[in-house]
Amino acid sequence: MLDLSNEFAIGIDIGGTNTKYGLVNHRGEILKKGDIRTDAYHKVEDFVDALHEVLMPIIKDKVCDGKVKGIGVGAPNGNFYTGTIEYAPNLHWKGIVPVTKLITQKFGLPSALTNDANAAAIGEMNYGAARGMRDFIMITLGTGVGSGIVANGQLVLGHDGFAGELGHTVVRHGGRKHWSTKIDGSLEAYCSATGITMTAKELMAQNPLVDCLMRKYDGSELDSKRIFECAELGDALALETYRLTGEILGEALANFVMFSSPEAIILFGGVIKAGDYIMSPTRDNMEKNLLPMFQDKVKLVFSELKEADAAILGASALVWDLRE
Amino acid sequence: MLDLSNEFAIGIDIGGTNTKYGLVNHRGEILKKGDIRTDAYHKVEDFVDALHEVLMPIIKDKVCDGKVKGIGVGAPNGNFYTGTIEYAPNLHWKGIVPVTKLITQKFGLPSALTNDANAAAIGEMNYGAARGMRDFIMITLGTGVGSGIVANGQLVLGHDGFAGELGHTVVRHGGRKHWSTKIDGSLEAYCSATGITMTAKELMAQNPLVDCLMRKYDGSELDSKRIFECAELGDALALETYRLTGEILGEALANFVMFSSPEAIILFGGVIKAGDYIMSPTRDNMEKNLLPMFQDKVKLVFSELKEADAAILGASALVWDLRE
Repeated sequence: MLDLSNEFAIGIDIGGTNTKYGLVNHRGEILKKGDIRTDAYHKVEDFVDALHEVLMPIIKDKVCDGKVKGIGVGAPNGNFYTGTIEYAPNLHWKGIVPVTKLITQKFGLPSALTNDANAAAIGEMNYGAARGMRDFIMITLGTGVGSGIVANGQLVLGHDGFAGELGHTVVRHGGRKHWSTKIDGSLEAYCSATGITMTAKELMAQNPLVDCLMRKYDGSELDSKRIFECAELGDALALETYRLTGEILGEALANFVMFSSPEAIILFGGVIKAGDYIMSPTRDNMEKNLLPMFQDKVKLVFSELKEADAAILGASALVWDLRE
Repeated sequence: MLDLSNEFAIGIDIGGTNTKYGLVNHRGEILKKGDIRTDAYHKVEDFVDALHEVLMPIIKDKVCDGKVKGIGVGAPNGNFYTGTIEYAPNLHWKGIVPVTKLITQKFGLPSALTNDANAAAIGEMNYGAARGMRDFIMITLGTGVGSGIVANGQLVLGHDGFAGELGHTVVRHGGRKHWSTKIDGSLEAYCSATGITMTAKELMAQNPLVDCLMRKYDGSELDSKRIFECAELGDALALETYRLTGEILGEALANFVMFSSPEAIILFGGVIKAGDYIMSPTRDNMEKNLLPMFQDKVKLVFSELKEADAAILGASALVWDLRE
């Protein structure tokens, strides 16, 4: 049975195209949810007005009237300290956008903001695989590679609020140039869905004589879902794609462990659907690169949150930490 | 004038050979100091007795009688959470040694322990270049490469107390094997005094036709001090040694910045005597590998603590955070 007795939080996940929202209780159950288009609003004020219109009936509903404690927002380039979205390349609103200020003015409720990867980490700590943990790292492996780091029970935000860009750390000196950042050999260049597809194509080009199921897809058709399907059918180059990806990811995770010595690393996102194909080489290579004092200690686990709900849950969880 | 009006702390720095101690005030002034041999005591209890003998006259001195708030200890493999030194390879005392418990029992004073690199970071935050900072990283470049990380104003200790082993992160996949850890391509393998000397020797071997002042030293005579002297005389391979070292260090620092977004990185230890020879390529390569959002923000500075005093100061500073 859903818990309706306590406080509620609104979680809002702002993406480039859509913005999802939900009403969440302390157990991480989503009682109501919905979405609006992000890209339909060229002015952030209009966007906040649109949110107000869809959310007020929920906030004023008799079930939770007076019990909604606040509004948490996850957004690309969201800065927890300032409550602003800063220079987000995929949003219409340019420059520095004072999101929490606008929301609080419009709704009369406290509001908090962070970037989507940090929100995911907070969600995992409140409702998911990191419940009760004070030190863990969340890695999201999707189109890009994001991260949220918790140390001493707190998000590591850094002096400017931008800590935790582990996808952009260099894992192969002089390696593959990232298509957007132009950094050579970053984690995201290899271990994002995009990077994995590039690795598969490189392997096919390097091994022209090897039979390979992935060859039936032309360049733009091959994606991480199809690589996975080929791996399931035993395709050698698809399996090698995951082995190489896991080798790089494992080495990177070992470095992260020696930084903050987390109790667990929690993996999230589309790429982890490859399951053991990627997890097994990742774990092996992580352990291999750790000092003995860190070996066989770090839990490497998948997120326990449903991917579709995780961003809303994470954003909502920001509310529980709001000071009155 | 020394400040004698307030509380005092005892700082103890346990090294493999010698143990240094000092009486420190809130300003980080060392009022008295001394040392005893560490390796003369095969039982840790005898070592604590010896400390008690030299320290009690200081603690009971009329200047500070009743005003010594506690005893802070920095030691290799010191664990802040448990107050134990765990399996330190360079100490006689094997296994898990309950240092703070023994000290508190003997002295009747509260005690805290951490490893030497964390102690250095705490010292820098209380008395040195990191005063007032809540997010910084301290890197010690000496015989080895150590690190202490502060985020949100607290040491990052990790779930087991062993966080902050940045010297053992991999910076060159498949690179130089570390003489002790056997990890391939770790930061310490390149940027410690030992690693720098190895780089100089490799460069001489790879460039047999290049005139080089460093060649006048045979294998065991060449050390980082002599490489520095040759660089000062304009020797091309000595300068190249520092350039390569700085390139690797800078790339590693960029990765650390994208992890915890520190306000500053503070460098400490014998290697930094090379000054701009190493600092300039380090800074250039750090900036080059950062995302734009992190560029031109991170202060890269030298420690402000005298090397001889830093370990005592750092250990003493642990005392100020002790709960009553």
